[in-house]
Amino acid sequence: MNHRNPQLNKNGELQHLLTIEGLPRGIVTGILDRAKPFTEVAEGAAKKLPLLRGKSVFNLFFENSTRTRTTFEIAAKRLSADVINLNITTSSSSKGETLLDTVDNLAAMQADMFIVRHASSGAPHLIAQHLAATGRNHISVVNAGDGRHSHPTQGLLDMYTIRHYKKDFSQLTVAIIGDIMHSRVARSQIHALSILGVPEIRVIAPKTLLPGGVERLGVRVFHDIHEGLRGVDVVMTLRLQNERMQGALLPSPQEFFKSYGLTADKLVLAKPDAIVLHPGPMNRGVEIDSAVADGSQAVILPQVTFGIAVRMAVMSMLAGK
Amino acid sequence: MNHRNPQLNKNGELQHLLTIEGLPRGIVTGILDRAKPFTEVAEGAAKKLPLLRGKSVFNLFFENSTRTRTTFEIAAKRLSADVINLNITTSSSSKGETLLDTVDNLAAMQADMFIVRHASSGAPHLIAQHLAATGRNHISVVNAGDGRHSHPTQGLLDMYTIRHYKKDFSQLTVAIIGDIMHSRVARSQIHALSILGVPEIRVIAPKTLLPGGVERLGVRVFHDIHEGLRGVDVVMTLRLQNERMQGALLPSPQEFFKSYGLTADKLVLAKPDAIVLHPGPMNRGVEIDSAVADGSQAVILPQVTFGIAVRMAVMSMLAGK
Amino acid sequence: MNHRNPQLNKNGELQHLLTIEGLPRGIVTGILDRAKPFTEVAEGAAKKLPLLRGKSVFNLFFENSTRTRTTFEIAAKRLSADVINLNITTSSSSKGETLLDTVDNLAAMQADMFIVRHASSGAPHLIAQHLAATGRNHISVVNAGDGRHSHPTQGLLDMYTIRHYKKDFSQLTVAIIGDIMHSRVARSQIHALSILGVPEIRVIAPKTLLPGGVERLGVRVFHDIHEGLRGVDVVMTLRLQNERMQGALLPSPQEFFKSYGLTADKLVLAKPDAIVLHPGPMNRGVEIDSAVADGSQAVILPQVTFGIAVRMAVMSMLAGK
Repeated sequence: MNHRNPQLNKNGELQHLLTIEGLPRGIVTGILDRAKPFTEVAEGAAKKLPLLRGKSVFNLFFENSTRTRTTFEIAAKRLSADVINLNITTSSSSKGETLLDTVDNLAAMQADMFIVRHASSGAPHLIAQHLAATGRNHISVVNAGDGRHSHPTQGLLDMYTIRHYKKDFSQLTVAIIGDIMHSRVARSQIHALSILGVPEIRVIAPKTLLPGGVERLGVRVFHDIHEGLRGVDVVMTLRLQNERMQGALLPSPQEFFKSYGLTADKLVLAKPDAIVLHPGPMNRGVEIDSAVADGSQAVILPQVTFGIAVRMAVMSMLAGK
Repeated sequence: MNHRNPQLNKNGELQHLLTIEGLPRGIVTGILDRAKPFTEVAEGAAKKLPLLRGKSVFNLFFENSTRTRTTFEIAAKRLSADVINLNITTSSSSKGETLLDTVDNLAAMQADMFIVRHASSGAPHLIAQHLAATGRNHISVVNAGDGRHSHPTQGLLDMYTIRHYKKDFSQLTVAIIGDIMHSRVARSQIHALSILGVPEIRVIAPKTLLPGGVERLGVRVFHDIHEGLRGVDVVMTLRLQNERMQGALLPSPQEFFKSYGLTADKLVLAKPDAIVLHPGPMNRGVEIDSAVADGSQAVILPQVTFGIAVRMAVMSMLAGK
Repeated sequence: MNHRNPQLNKNGELQHLLTIEGLPRGIVTGILDRAKPFTEVAEGAAKKLPLLRGKSVFNLFFENSTRTRTTFEIAAKRLSADVINLNITTSSSSKGETLLDTVDNLAAMQADMFIVRHASSGAPHLIAQHLAATGRNHISVVNAGDGRHSHPTQGLLDMYTIRHYKKDFSQLTVAIIGDIMHSRVARSQIHALSILGVPEIRVIAPKTLLPGGVERLGVRVFHDIHEGLRGVDVVMTLRLQNERMQGALLPSPQEFFKSYGLTADKLVLAKPDAIVLHPGPMNRGVEIDSAVADGSQAVILPQVTFGIAVRMAVMSMLAGK
């Protein structure tokens, strides 16, 4: 484990994927490059590759997410891995076992990779550190979303999608709209866009949904969506978590939609060829209008397709390190 | 998609399996013929065939059914497919996503086949139409039971079972006993028996458990089980759903058993070589007596075995179209 | 089925693994011998062997246990079997189907092996007897824990672990500490140690946690842990089930830990090279102190690793019979 960056090994290769923050640009573009042939594999008749044959991939989901678990499960199976799904919310952790005892036990079953989803920020880091401290660096950890912290494969698939449609990051203006404060997706996107050299990253949100000091991440803050969308190349919408909708931070989903929901008449302020992303699952009529979600500028379903390829790329890179 | 029959493509081949109603007889017998070698595969040592290798089959269960899900999972795995089980009752649909957004997302993961179970009649049709409307006809939909509407693979495996024991449909008298009104199984059986040319199809039920106008399906109605069973070649019992037992339509399970439960002394009214079917799981002592269920005329366990082969046949036919 | 020992076939080969009680020593050592190469396979790059290719293994869990289910799932997948997980607590048994009807149905799906976990002692025996009575002896049953009765693969992996570290059973003193009365693990360990010729087996427990007549199993009873640990080669701790902690049999977890929890200052009474086992998941600070659990004498994680190999051995032996 590299002490300056716990995700990289001594040779500077990817050892774990815990967060996009601090990843060298070469690693990020390396993942995107590696994903490309996997999109072609997926379109072909034979989607099965033997790259992870005999490897045991554990989907360690301490927080339920069928969709994310499914994307990793498919990616691993297309690489011929053995996949074990563990929904830990309903299992041994309820038997009073600690997180690290659970990890130790699964590691002792000769795991090769842990895909970790956890409600607590930092849980995947903790696991990676523990594996390093106990001499089991051959097991890789992939963060599949931890608390409000990070969701790196989502950030990477968003970058893949942008690159697919816009080719070059160096001239882009990108706007992220919505609940920036609680969103691990937004955090991962901002880090990834910065690393890839996007010159202007905007966040568009009410004050109550912006973390303090967000400007230090290198973003421009807009509270007015009309101003924020003007002239952008890429519009990234965020899911508004249901638990926020009745909270103290927002008057109502309807109010949010009125002010920050992406509608066709707001989208015209962006460049005519602007693309629209959403990490899913969508709340239609809350953060995005159906006319936009189903419109010609939306690239929401390609995001899903690219997401499988990006996860195959990450997994095969980790397995081959 | 063929507009006269949305299950067939332009060449008249099976594209989806949504319902038995309206299927050409050649398609039905084609499935049964194709299933035959799969029963032999299953009996042999090597049950694994590469026909769906690299294909991704999604078990999309919006309504829980471990047994039906298991039969499709085994069938798909024996064809070497990658199988992803999605119990949607507890996942993204609770996150407010629409049915078609869920389908779009899974389709974008390069699904090849959806096995759909849903409490609402017509859900698999809706999905198939949506796939056609969005240019994704290469993804097949198999209805694994929708509301009170249809359960086509159950109907087909029942036909396979009858053909196995009786060889020829053209001389048979078949009786279906029980809760016809709420049974998607009964509906599928009646359509299948009609298509295959069974000259006399009887339904035996109290008035409260018969749908209005059932005669228009081409069946003879009996309220007295003794009359209805007289001289039949095949007796098809139906599961009485637990939720009906305390309902307004039935006095009690005991009363039902007394009047309509299949006992040995009623079964003697059928032909001596009559066979007895049940779709499972059985309520012993409600719709069927243990002496019959475990007796020599019951073919209930062969139904299960043939069911795997029939599902393998349907899947391989759809994948090869 | 051999009437004197329902686990063995006419040739004296293992047909089912239901309990360690009554197994010939040759069968027990045969399993341990067969497991050895599987530990090496697991350490190598290619963990996949084709021994169960095309076989269908059903994890029939009538009682939830993610950990045990996972160990069997991994073992079966590394042998290339198709694995079907059935959590029956939430499925067809709630539809009123009997245990044996469920078994009959799954058997009719051409199952090759049932891994059975059940809250009732004797359920796996009942299933094995039923399969024999209905002429389906080709399907093997592996008991994955039944009530308070038996957990044979746990007992076998414990024996594998002891043999790995101590080589020879014939000179050992082994102590089992904790809730002997409710523990299927303890029962399996005592039988296995006896069969393998361990000259002194001790049980250490308060009177309330010892079954009546335990001495008849050939063990020495100690109520004082200090006396019981003196000079032992192997210390086997047991999980204290949460439901016991508030029960009438124990004052509190804290009291239990004070009297029977394995701490470093108690462990010094054992031989200096004594090893410490625990079946997991651990209640740290109840039956075992962290200093011991994480100390150099603990072989708790090797137990897990050996457990996969032992299960692979059992499965491949049953499949090859």
